[in-house]
Amino acid sequence: MTDDQRWTRIEPQPEYTPGIGVLVEMMNYARMTTLQAVKDMSMAELDDIPPGFSNSIGMLLAHVAATDRLYQAVSFEDRDPFEAPDYAPYQGAMTFGWKGEKVQGRTLEDLLHELNETRAATLAQLAKLDDAWLASRIKAPGFEDMNQHWAWFHVMEDEVSHRGQIRLIRKALKRAEASV
Amino acid sequence: MTDDQRWTRIEPQPEYTPGIGVLVEMMNYARMTTLQAVKDMSMAELDDIPPGFSNSIGMLLAHVAATDRLYQAVSFEDRDPFEAPDYAPYQGAMTFGWKGEKVQGRTLEDLLHELNETRAATLAQLAKLDDAWLASRIKAPGFEDMNQHWAWFHVMEDEVSHRGQIRLIRKALKRAEASV
Repeated sequence: MTDDQRWTRIEPQPEYTPGIGVLVEMMNYARMTTLQAVKDMSMAELDDIPPGFSNSIGMLLAHVAATDRLYQAVSFEDRDPFEAPDYAPYQGAMTFGWKGEKVQGRTLEDLLHELNETRAATLAQLAKLDDAWLASRIKAPGFEDMNQHWAWFHVMEDEVSHRGQIRLIRKALKRAEASV
Repeated sequence: MTDDQRWTRIEPQPEYTPGIGVLVEMMNYARMTTLQAVKDMSMAELDDIPPGFSNSIGMLLAHVAATDRLYQAVSFEDRDPFEAPDYAPYQGAMTFGWKGEKVQGRTLEDLLHELNETRAATLAQLAKLDDAWLASRIKAPGFEDMNQHWAWFHVMEDEVSHRGQIRLIRKALKRAEASV
């Protein structure tokens, strides 16, 4: 079985309960496509913002990792990290520089390392939980309308949305380069 | 309970088996955000392609409906519609004009009507199926590596990716307008 074939199926994942396993399959698929979309990018390309766009691909990758980290606090620790000191280093990435510094000057290796580390912590935690927890409501103040299932769906869904944007930005970068 | 609160939960849907219900919740959420992203757009805005971009928002909306229709054939009818005469009208939308005509000159109402009609047929069919079917492999020639679960996840995931792109295109259109 090649990897390509594997990626077009959602199958039970023995290390997770069934509902969490399905979600993890989706998160893994989304991540695989994100990695494909940024393959071999240089720091200059990661920092470039083509005309008509607001964010660089580096900013979007850091935002995806910061979102994962945000929902770890919200979902696993029952707290809103937006005002917490430990989340301060990720505010800039989370808000695209609206609050905190804009992400810039980071290598692809560094950005992917952060994505991997953060996601590994999420998956380790999800492996300890079960489908009853997945259906339960979030307890973090300000996030109580959500349930856990939606929260992690949303982390995946937000990544897919930004991956779609990464594809457009990368195409625009190539076009700008070709027209020089 | 306001709609906003409802949208941040994935909850059992009695008209579907559990696994299909979760997927339908995700598909409905994705669609709600697509509709938000294109709210009140004029035909001129739907047809416009800002500098640096390849596709209009109208083209992306028609592509989302054509994808739903493609997977109806693949998933429910065990056939590859790409060469079938009944799919010919949607080839242009599916391929962004690569094969067939580019989508142009359609009103938002018309594009949303097609999205709604197509999705209603998908949901009606999903309500007749069950989680054993969801885990089964696709039988359509050329699509056998997929299982049903991934196929409908992918329809949702592709829509989310294009919704992310729609947000960028709409922002670029507004910026171009402001600079005139």
